[in-house]
Amino acid sequence: MANVSAAMKRHQVDDSNNELYTRFRYQPITGLGYEQGINRRDPSTIIKVKDIFYLWYTRNECAKSSWLDADIWYASSKDGISWQEQGPAVIRGEEGAWDEYSVFTTEILVTDDKYYLCYQAKRNNDPLNVVGMAWAESVDGPWVKLKEPILKPTPDGKLINPTEHGDSNWGAALEIGSWDSGAIHDPGIIKFKDQYYLYYKGHAIGEKMFTDSKWGLAISDRPEGPYIKHKLNPVSNSGHETWVFPWKEGIAAIVDWAGPEKGTIQYSPDGINFEVITILEDIPPAGGAYVPDKFIGNGDGQGFSWGVAHYGSSDWSFLVGFTCDLTREGDKDLAWHNYKHYSAIRDVLKDPEKFGLPRDHLFK
Amino acid sequence: MANVSAAMKRHQVDDSNNELYTRFRYQPITGLGYEQGINRRDPSTIIKVKDIFYLWYTRNECAKSSWLDADIWYASSKDGISWQEQGPAVIRGEEGAWDEYSVFTTEILVTDDKYYLCYQAKRNNDPLNVVGMAWAESVDGPWVKLKEPILKPTPDGKLINPTEHGDSNWGAALEIGSWDSGAIHDPGIIKFKDQYYLYYKGHAIGEKMFTDSKWGLAISDRPEGPYIKHKLNPVSNSGHETWVFPWKEGIAAIVDWAGPEKGTIQYSPDGINFEVITILEDIPPAGGAYVPDKFIGNGDGQGFSWGVAHYGSSDWSFLVGFTCDLTREGDKDLAWHNYKHYSAIRDVLKDPEKFGLPRDHLFK
Repeated sequence: MANVSAAMKRHQVDDSNNELYTRFRYQPITGLGYEQGINRRDPSTIIKVKDIFYLWYTRNECAKSSWLDADIWYASSKDGISWQEQGPAVIRGEEGAWDEYSVFTTEILVTDDKYYLCYQAKRNNDPLNVVGMAWAESVDGPWVKLKEPILKPTPDGKLINPTEHGDSNWGAALEIGSWDSGAIHDPGIIKFKDQYYLYYKGHAIGEKMFTDSKWGLAISDRPEGPYIKHKLNPVSNSGHETWVFPWKEGIAAIVDWAGPEKGTIQYSPDGINFEVITILEDIPPAGGAYVPDKFIGNGDGQGFSWGVAHYGSSDWSFLVGFTCDLTREGDKDLAWHNYKHYSAIRDVLKDPEKFGLPRDHLFK
Repeated sequence: MANVSAAMKRHQVDDSNNELYTRFRYQPITGLGYEQGINRRDPSTIIKVKDIFYLWYTRNECAKSSWLDADIWYASSKDGISWQEQGPAVIRGEEGAWDEYSVFTTEILVTDDKYYLCYQAKRNNDPLNVVGMAWAESVDGPWVKLKEPILKPTPDGKLINPTEHGDSNWGAALEIGSWDSGAIHDPGIIKFKDQYYLYYKGHAIGEKMFTDSKWGLAISDRPEGPYIKHKLNPVSNSGHETWVFPWKEGIAAIVDWAGPEKGTIQYSPDGINFEVITILEDIPPAGGAYVPDKFIGNGDGQGFSWGVAHYGSSDWSFLVGFTCDLTREGDKDLAWHNYKHYSAIRDVLKDPEKFGLPRDHLFK
């Protein structure tokens, strides 16, 4: 190996031969697309129950407030393209509760014949947040909330305005805190080696840069906790809406636009030590994929080929479909990799009517 | 270091503290913008001579042919925004010459009180290409072509159609060749340690994937050659239009959209062994920057803050301006890094009239 440059020493797999490289194609879905005044964001993993697909998402009325003031709704579909909104699944708590202001950014877990939703929760006049959980016997609910949060920020650091509402207030610090002292966001659970691995994004009190996200892991023997934060946290130095899925014997993570390793796909045999496999382009924003074996935990993860993402600006998001070939089923299609043949997420802007969008609204 | 995850072991510099991280902002320029029927592509590095800026670029008439059938033109500007097209600098050769079909994708070198242009050159009915060079005493020419190419593909591999014209024909192979047997593209020269470092992109005969570019280096003691290919080639495993510039004591490279390390900025103290410094987003396509110290070679590279890139599709490209803060002058502006505050290259699509573009044309 002496007679190769540093680049060629690193260079093991071309994208064309890389199982974890893909391009993404985007297409409209119906029922959860653009609707004036309604904000739909952060779709969960998609699951299938008796031949029907289900997903959960953050929903609020953007005419009334910012997108942060929200509840968790769900929808079902027979084909993944035509969706029917079913109504609320988990709504924010009563005045004084730790989830009184909002419940949002949810993920689903299916295990032991039960359904579990984990999600961000906020009270009024508090810039921080916690992760809550609710469970149900049926995919249609009713959902029973756990009394206490399953995850909280590390209680150190000192805010300048500890009662000023606002999601990004953690940057204004009298004293810098731990990496996850200011915010814990975007929880997602996977079953792995007979335990439950809860991944979450952290921001430090005193963090200078909104986009400089890191991710931690908390592990529990039971779905409802207690979750113990891993001593090697953070396990990712990047990603704003990282999603994990079983891949072969380990866990793969799609690390999107934030941080020094932005826009990468990473793999870890142990769920803790991730290595960059390659760089992806045009990653579905806050994507939720249909991952058939996400909760099986059999050490032979197969990946996925389609899902749903959100798009728009923060006050009028809607959901769009995507396809890809991050799946071990069938051969990789080389044409799929080719730069010339894909529909970028930004192509939504080129053909807004196809997505049910008024052109004028988009060009604001 | 035992008690950190693999990600945190790698993680040395956040983007907010990384001198080589930037966002790019785009803006129209005049004189080289969209013009129906005219194709302007691949701007060179911008130089300043007696307070006037100059750049060279590929120009053809897209109504007559594909963009490959081209000559090298140049333009000047007092402010970098308003440009005056000055006419041809180097035009293709006579019938039978090795540059009879096209001269294109040029870069400028200024040294020893002379100007040198290196560029791709093609003959008719030949899928391969070579790198040619011309020199002039004055920035306005006349340009004297060197009789022989300064760089050629490695002569191995075997094409199925060795006389079929077409730029991407190198994939159809009877026998796979060396990494730079099929094409040598996008030459760029920098002065480094009292020598001339010529970087160029290579494709192998038999390469499966158009976007899987690698880059090599050839070094000469004199600007006009002979250039000797480096024994550690290739020196980059990625990049479709990689640009290099002096940075501190070494060389930095912007590696754009192709290959496993697509969209990165890399640094090498020796110009040969590059390491990834961080991942960049929205890199100017085929950018040419004003790099004031590019040809000084004093081992103290300062970077740059603005330039010109091309945009459009292959048959109606035009030039747009960009700004950034890849410069060591002054402090880094944190606000600049923020995801919310930049103009993406795709924003050209949102406001086409500002760029002199007919909206209908863009949405084709």
